[in-house]
Amino acid sequence: MSSTFGSVFRVSTWGESHGAGIGVVVDGCPARVALTQEMVQKELDRRKPGQSDITTQRKEPDTVEILSGVVDGKTLGTPISMMVRNVDARPAAYDEMAHAYRPSHADYCYDAKYGIRPLSGGGRASARETIGRVAAGAVARAVVQSLYPKMDVIAWVESVHDLVCTVPPHLVEREEIRANDARTADRHLGVQMAMEIRRARNAGDTLGGVVACTVRNCPVGLGDPVFDKLEATLAHAMMSIPACKGFEVGSGFRAPSMTGSEHNDIYFYDGKRVRTRTNNSGGIQGGISNGEDINMRMAFKPTATISAAQNTINDRMQEILLRGGGRHDPCVLPRAVPIVEAMAWIVLCDHLLRQRSCRL
Amino acid sequence: MSSTFGSVFRVSTWGESHGAGIGVVVDGCPARVALTQEMVQKELDRRKPGQSDITTQRKEPDTVEILSGVVDGKTLGTPISMMVRNVDARPAAYDEMAHAYRPSHADYCYDAKYGIRPLSGGGRASARETIGRVAAGAVARAVVQSLYPKMDVIAWVESVHDLVCTVPPHLVEREEIRANDARTADRHLGVQMAMEIRRARNAGDTLGGVVACTVRNCPVGLGDPVFDKLEATLAHAMMSIPACKGFEVGSGFRAPSMTGSEHNDIYFYDGKRVRTRTNNSGGIQGGISNGEDINMRMAFKPTATISAAQNTINDRMQEILLRGGGRHDPCVLPRAVPIVEAMAWIVLCDHLLRQRSCRL
Amino acid sequence: MSSTFGSVFRVSTWGESHGAGIGVVVDGCPARVALTQEMVQKELDRRKPGQSDITTQRKEPDTVEILSGVVDGKTLGTPISMMVRNVDARPAAYDEMAHAYRPSHADYCYDAKYGIRPLSGGGRASARETIGRVAAGAVARAVVQSLYPKMDVIAWVESVHDLVCTVPPHLVEREEIRANDARTADRHLGVQMAMEIRRARNAGDTLGGVVACTVRNCPVGLGDPVFDKLEATLAHAMMSIPACKGFEVGSGFRAPSMTGSEHNDIYFYDGKRVRTRTNNSGGIQGGISNGEDINMRMAFKPTATISAAQNTINDRMQEILLRGGGRHDPCVLPRAVPIVEAMAWIVLCDHLLRQRSCRL
Amino acid sequence: MSSTFGSVFRVSTWGESHGAGIGVVVDGCPARVALTQEMVQKELDRRKPGQSDITTQRKEPDTVEILSGVVDGKTLGTPISMMVRNVDARPAAYDEMAHAYRPSHADYCYDAKYGIRPLSGGGRASARETIGRVAAGAVARAVVQSLYPKMDVIAWVESVHDLVCTVPPHLVEREEIRANDARTADRHLGVQMAMEIRRARNAGDTLGGVVACTVRNCPVGLGDPVFDKLEATLAHAMMSIPACKGFEVGSGFRAPSMTGSEHNDIYFYDGKRVRTRTNNSGGIQGGISNGEDINMRMAFKPTATISAAQNTINDRMQEILLRGGGRHDPCVLPRAVPIVEAMAWIVLCDHLLRQRSCRL
Repeated sequence: MSSTFGSVFRVSTWGESHGAGIGVVVDGCPARVALTQEMVQKELDRRKPGQSDITTQRKEPDTVEILSGVVDGKTLGTPISMMVRNVDARPAAYDEMAHAYRPSHADYCYDAKYGIRPLSGGGRASARETIGRVAAGAVARAVVQSLYPKMDVIAWVESVHDLVCTVPPHLVEREEIRANDARTADRHLGVQMAMEIRRARNAGDTLGGVVACTVRNCPVGLGDPVFDKLEATLAHAMMSIPACKGFEVGSGFRAPSMTGSEHNDIYFYDGKRVRTRTNNSGGIQGGISNGEDINMRMAFKPTATISAAQNTINDRMQEILLRGGGRHDPCVLPRAVPIVEAMAWIVLCDHLLRQRSCRL
Repeated sequence: MSSTFGSVFRVSTWGESHGAGIGVVVDGCPARVALTQEMVQKELDRRKPGQSDITTQRKEPDTVEILSGVVDGKTLGTPISMMVRNVDARPAAYDEMAHAYRPSHADYCYDAKYGIRPLSGGGRASARETIGRVAAGAVARAVVQSLYPKMDVIAWVESVHDLVCTVPPHLVEREEIRANDARTADRHLGVQMAMEIRRARNAGDTLGGVVACTVRNCPVGLGDPVFDKLEATLAHAMMSIPACKGFEVGSGFRAPSMTGSEHNDIYFYDGKRVRTRTNNSGGIQGGISNGEDINMRMAFKPTATISAAQNTINDRMQEILLRGGGRHDPCVLPRAVPIVEAMAWIVLCDHLLRQRSCRL
Repeated sequence: MSSTFGSVFRVSTWGESHGAGIGVVVDGCPARVALTQEMVQKELDRRKPGQSDITTQRKEPDTVEILSGVVDGKTLGTPISMMVRNVDARPAAYDEMAHAYRPSHADYCYDAKYGIRPLSGGGRASARETIGRVAAGAVARAVVQSLYPKMDVIAWVESVHDLVCTVPPHLVEREEIRANDARTADRHLGVQMAMEIRRARNAGDTLGGVVACTVRNCPVGLGDPVFDKLEATLAHAMMSIPACKGFEVGSGFRAPSMTGSEHNDIYFYDGKRVRTRTNNSGGIQGGISNGEDINMRMAFKPTATISAAQNTINDRMQEILLRGGGRHDPCVLPRAVPIVEAMAWIVLCDHLLRQRSCRL
Repeated sequence: MSSTFGSVFRVSTWGESHGAGIGVVVDGCPARVALTQEMVQKELDRRKPGQSDITTQRKEPDTVEILSGVVDGKTLGTPISMMVRNVDARPAAYDEMAHAYRPSHADYCYDAKYGIRPLSGGGRASARETIGRVAAGAVARAVVQSLYPKMDVIAWVESVHDLVCTVPPHLVEREEIRANDARTADRHLGVQMAMEIRRARNAGDTLGGVVACTVRNCPVGLGDPVFDKLEATLAHAMMSIPACKGFEVGSGFRAPSMTGSEHNDIYFYDGKRVRTRTNNSGGIQGGISNGEDINMRMAFKPTATISAAQNTINDRMQEILLRGGGRHDPCVLPRAVPIVEAMAWIVLCDHLLRQRSCRL
């Protein structure tokens, strides 16, 4: 089940980096949800390469075709198949790397696992696979917002290397994120981040960072104890994004240094609505959403492909010196933002649909 | 599917904190694996309450009965059902709390989700649920080690509040962990940690910390791209443990401040074996194990139940003052160690069995 | 996943014929459904051995214990674990058969598949495994009828060997079935069937037959195209019952000899309700229930254990002469009735819950 | 999960009859299996319309494109996505039927279930959906035969209306089936069957029949007790094919009239190989293959679309007179043959892969 995610709302992606294309089938989407090609394309445009000078220069229009499951702008309740053709694959660019095991790439592991791998591009380990996730996320969002129009998911680049954005999650605005190429929550900082990324690229190097994500106006009750706690499925979703090395919710890795009396979120009635005075729980208690904002942070490593020369090995038992080819992002963070949002929408949509059979 | 974990090796737990007992059914366990009641009991004894004065004083022998799937010390390939009876449930102790929503507990969320909850104990959200995980983990370990006898999983308490154990993962020894009540990797530090925990308890408070875990001698090739990457399923498993707020693998949240040239793990041949000079990847690349140690860290919040009085609300729309009753751990970390190991074994066993159908 | 059935409403059975007991865990049951031990016991009593002189004489009270998931007669939404202890297992009775491969039994196949099997009793292939199904069926029925009180499932013995009950499905009455040991829909025919069964038993032989089942007042819309059509999941459920060799719905094996103009069910409006003039479809079209009665027929082979001597082989490469020991039903049909009903309830409940996420 | 079938080898189909196309994603296929477009196309050509004058005259080349998962004629172990574009969809031909509920079609049920349906063609209920099954079946066959080259699945039309082919399963030859348009196992009878089908078509009517299927040289040990018995998953697979009304294995509906001593299959040693003297079990005992031929029979109803006028209703609460339009098969049997084989291969492949984790 390696390429399928979700329990009721199920997302299955397919496609290799340098193959015919990339696609996704969404099964379990409810009928009669408004969905158009434009809604999906809009999200893909936020992910596609070449949006600015700090992303990969691979030229891919990433135009999506909806092949099934939608008629006249409404879902049918049947599987929604969507596809993006690969246009600018340049297998030749990978020739010298064909038999190399690039450091911190998946080449060696795929070979060891399957005994075969596409000798060009990253295959399934390529960031192009995430096209399917973003397309499916657009469907998930349409489902969720048709039920909860005010519910929203916002992700942003919280840090690039040592540049940190300190805007607190509840003050983050989508406009601000759109207004800078680095996709951080402060457009002025974004300019600095972009410069930092260019500087690393020019030095033949790459950078990592943190993506933060907040879910607003989430209904109470999402998440399935015991194993499919909301934070556990979110962690699964986020840690499945290429280059993600860490996940935390609410107080996260700050929790260990707090005492119970500091950490506990005190309940009170805000009119008839139950709320908590603090939100160290990150909107989730016992694996179930409590109605407060769900706050997550994801650590991303620097892109493994660097243009500086590196020692490594190849699949012929030789040690070699490798200089990075192909076209890659000097920093994955800006393009990770719509992917993080997509995975959050997918998880939330799945739990929302699962929730419908919890009570009669 | 909330109470089932795993794809081929499937673990389903059941049972409420103050009900008849706690159990687990393991389906998909291969036939003819050596398994005895003692092997399971030994792991449960590491988890059970009352091992020292820094854990809850609830008296539970936690004696496991294997009800099916094993004959004459060998698995049959059929479901293995195991059960532990609850002995020392004291529903009365919870009377005053019956209708209270305890801060940072699951009470309110369960009520909101299901419209019903057991008015005594934490129900499924209780740490007693983890008995089933530990029992299943013992089965998983038996399966894995019958194939890879040298493969091992070791977890330890890396920190309690501000006390941090700095023994590097590859030097951690099981003997040292066993030799201190705090279950850290340095017995002398363990004494201090235990004192810190007692001090917090006496102050009516509780503490959190970090549990670290390392997997040694893991074969290359485990983990299923795309969604079921090894780190993604490990994150899912760990974040499903009560009180876990964060997960990281390898460089984790240190990765964002590194450059690609610093972070990349350079391959070399150690004789015929492929190895990496550093291990920022934490033993996993592209979602697949590369043969290096798999290193993880999990953040645990301080226990939500404190004996100091707290403001909160009840299920009758009232704001109340609550003083914690029941018997709870002042710090969950020491008892989380066998649970973390169990979840790691379960994930690894599942991937090991899944791996068998990847190639013919 | 061999021992789990269902998608949202999930039933997992465990237990060997001569082990500690037999059990089932039902996960995905909605919260707040009225459920008592009596409701489950009542169904188990219809299945238990020794109800009359034409069933096996193994003495098993089959008293069920509900271990979790239910408090004060209401489901919690958490896993419902139920167990029946084996009381009258007589391993010794099987001594001579321990190494024999009984004709048309599962002994040889289990050995070939797993390389191990319990040397006493039929293990998981025993009819005792169906205890878990009947218990789970009682839960499923409680869920379904709490939503659709008039919906009902009735199974009966349509034939034993060459004795055939011709009461049409819509005229079958539960009272009549209860009133005869053979569980057919005509109490007078039931007396003859019982005699026929006794005659076979006295001759050291066994009989087969057909169980019919009708679902009344089923809501329109159950069943998930494409692969989980209602008839496909019903077929899966029924064909998983030991000794079942065939399944048909509606016109079934009569359909091939009809023309389209004869077979088509003409729609008409019965007031506002859509109905069909005939019901060759058996209440299902395109895999989805259409509101008419769902009519099924299941063929059961004669019990494989006969007391007459038979040639066979053992697991030591020898050909032997075997005389059946153990205690078995001379005809499984009467006791199959509650099992068929249980499997139907489980399928219907699962589809009912799945249906809740088909539309918003 | 309505559009996914299988546990380890997972087949997900998508696509509407009059949409952009029909496709399938196969996940869980092992790596390094030889697979070419030709191997898939060959099977699709056996299913495609217009092979003879007794099938629908819709003109569809049904040319398959393999979009992912295969490089240089070898599978990669990643999802295999395959697509066939719809070419000859004629939505206009359905105009008068757009709002009619055709008798014994899925129109009404889809509308009742989803509240929406494509107003042209049968949507997912169309026989065109089976393209994905046949393509996936070709992959399954490649996997199975790379392990067991002699294992084979052969289906044929056993009867059309009252014309019955009596060639016993073990004597059926593929050449003979190919040599007649009716796809029966006797080419002379095939001529009569084709005439019978033409006669029915000319009379504005349609015919049903029985498809038989035999699996030869199946290894011992396939099938997972309890719920996923080999016959239960085969029944699920076959009953999910449009128009299938009944399934039986081995003695099937003849079993009820036999006694145990007649029905039991006596074991003997054929050299070192365990065999049975008769095969009433149909190659399966206790849900597990025993190495004998697996024999199945499936009842298919006559095509619901007839050209004669019929009374029915529409979705506007009116009773109407409907004359069938669109292009349909006067008898689905000949084209059902490759679909039945495909579903059998899929089930067998899945069990073969599941089997790999049953023993270490």
